[in-house]
Amino acid sequence: MINRTKKVFDGVKADALVTEQEDLRFYLTGFASSFGVVVCDSLSAKFYTDSRYLEAAQNALCDSGIDVLEYPKGISLAELLSGYKTIAMPLDRISANEYNALLNNGFTIVDSTTAFRDAMAVKDEGEIENIKLACLATDKAFEELLPLIKEGMTENEVAAQLEFLMRKHGASGTSFETICAFGANGSVPHHETGKSVLKFGDPVLIDFGCKINGYCSDCTRTFLFGDDGKHEEFKKVYDKVLSAHMLVKEKFTEGMLGREGDAIARDYLANYGLAKYFTHSLGHSLGVNIHEFPNLSPNDKNVFKNGMVFSDEPGVYIAGQLGIRIEDTVTLSGGKVVSLTNSDKKLIIL
Amino acid sequence: MINRTKKVFDGVKADALVTEQEDLRFYLTGFASSFGVVVCDSLSAKFYTDSRYLEAAQNALCDSGIDVLEYPKGISLAELLSGYKTIAMPLDRISANEYNALLNNGFTIVDSTTAFRDAMAVKDEGEIENIKLACLATDKAFEELLPLIKEGMTENEVAAQLEFLMRKHGASGTSFETICAFGANGSVPHHETGKSVLKFGDPVLIDFGCKINGYCSDCTRTFLFGDDGKHEEFKKVYDKVLSAHMLVKEKFTEGMLGREGDAIARDYLANYGLAKYFTHSLGHSLGVNIHEFPNLSPNDKNVFKNGMVFSDEPGVYIAGQLGIRIEDTVTLSGGKVVSLTNSDKKLIIL
Repeated sequence: MINRTKKVFDGVKADALVTEQEDLRFYLTGFASSFGVVVCDSLSAKFYTDSRYLEAAQNALCDSGIDVLEYPKGISLAELLSGYKTIAMPLDRISANEYNALLNNGFTIVDSTTAFRDAMAVKDEGEIENIKLACLATDKAFEELLPLIKEGMTENEVAAQLEFLMRKHGASGTSFETICAFGANGSVPHHETGKSVLKFGDPVLIDFGCKINGYCSDCTRTFLFGDDGKHEEFKKVYDKVLSAHMLVKEKFTEGMLGREGDAIARDYLANYGLAKYFTHSLGHSLGVNIHEFPNLSPNDKNVFKNGMVFSDEPGVYIAGQLGIRIEDTVTLSGGKVVSLTNSDKKLIIL
Repeated sequence: MINRTKKVFDGVKADALVTEQEDLRFYLTGFASSFGVVVCDSLSAKFYTDSRYLEAAQNALCDSGIDVLEYPKGISLAELLSGYKTIAMPLDRISANEYNALLNNGFTIVDSTTAFRDAMAVKDEGEIENIKLACLATDKAFEELLPLIKEGMTENEVAAQLEFLMRKHGASGTSFETICAFGANGSVPHHETGKSVLKFGDPVLIDFGCKINGYCSDCTRTFLFGDDGKHEEFKKVYDKVLSAHMLVKEKFTEGMLGREGDAIARDYLANYGLAKYFTHSLGHSLGVNIHEFPNLSPNDKNVFKNGMVFSDEPGVYIAGQLGIRIEDTVTLSGGKVVSLTNSDKKLIIL
């Protein structure tokens, strides 16, 4: 873990890197807790937490190079940091109140946002392993879900069943609110899972993911609950969305920019007049958080590197008619895209 | 909903109340969305959001007195607010970066934290109705869970089953990460639900809650999975924790301070030498968020009022031996405590 603290500390120009935010603290230490502060300087990394977590943190981090200490009772953050002059904190995350309190205590505060963003963008082996575990639970849950889907179930019930199965396969919870959309509801990219009832012939779009050991997965599948013979258009579009998805996996490589990845899918769909229905970006990075940096969006100018983990999720949404999205969590390894979610993407007709 | 915007606006001294935070925006509008800003002044309340939510928000808020508008593309918040001089924002929630950007644009910023805190503390009828729905789903799920608990299940599996049942009864998700603790794990108040396996004679502590229509429930039950004859001490302590819990419901009334509520339970437990094992506060308010203001803690000097909703959750934790917590979500109505979660609290032996 000391590698992560060093990686971020080296990215800031400060006497100390000071980190209170739950996700960033977890990234630095690998230890989940609702309270604590990590203070890294050029000599050491210290994790201060309270009595609830102290023993567990000391056990978990004994070989990490991070010293675990009890946060001194009745001491303000300014007092804890009194040996430093310039401190680095994420200025898009600390509150105006906290910022002002530290300024009033004479600290110079520099921004650690970019250093975290860049360090977290490239995952290390341990992180990739955890994301793989989350992706595997996602795949298994989806496979076990399919035979349980019956006519008359609500979107809420299907989502609940899927979440139960992810839990069963080791997830601590979902990585975001499960989207389950029946019929034309699928044409709303952020449809709120509700009480719509499944009927024969309905398309079903499910966007779901879970967390294991603090890391996220993200997957979307669209399929048909029976074929009522009215799905010629649906099948045509499905084929194009899947081809766009696969083309990204084939053509996107290390060294390309995010916008070049997005363009692979968008240009392909444009050939069939479908680009205007592809109303969001191709993908986003994920890791500790479900949305991380960088994105595969039309404006993204960041160079993608081995070890980055992101979604490949082209979609076509024709309002009131149909919505199709096919998404895998993928990584760049050896210069190429490797898929981490792997449940079937051939059109399923239940 | 206009009542809520007015209630908070009247609590600040500013030309406009400006609110971006998801939970606070939801409180003001009753409409859930991941992006938007509510701007209230003495004449009007406006909710700006993006195209994803526009139509749904306009439908939902058509009779609310809140105007729904599309957030103008390419416009900064400072530009949107250019007609105002003094704006009120929650300074413990807006980031240092945003605060500085607004200051640099010439705004005077006052803090809306206390106005929100106070307004949200007393729930209106619609809010109480939603909390009741969440509490009812919590009760039903617990009752249906009990016959499903079998020897050999893990804590994770029991939690997953319970979450599934809450979902089935209409929950959109949990209101916090479910705590399920077998055996001596119950003595850790924030035990992380894991892979421990249920054995005959184990005590089981479950702390759980769900969200319906954006409002939370919170409930804890402790029970025995079979009686192996070694639970004399457990039963004695259970009886005292339950009496402390019930005594709060009987004695705590409108007009009392938070610390007086806490003292009812703490003083009772002290009579039996158990107060030193009651290592947290008696309760916390809840509503849109699972932890709201005020608390029933030893230092809380706030006057409790009708319409406040909070937890009554005394607990006794003897490290490595036992942990017992009995919690209901309750409200003050007509001056007295009314319980909103109501599943059985008599010691259950499965």
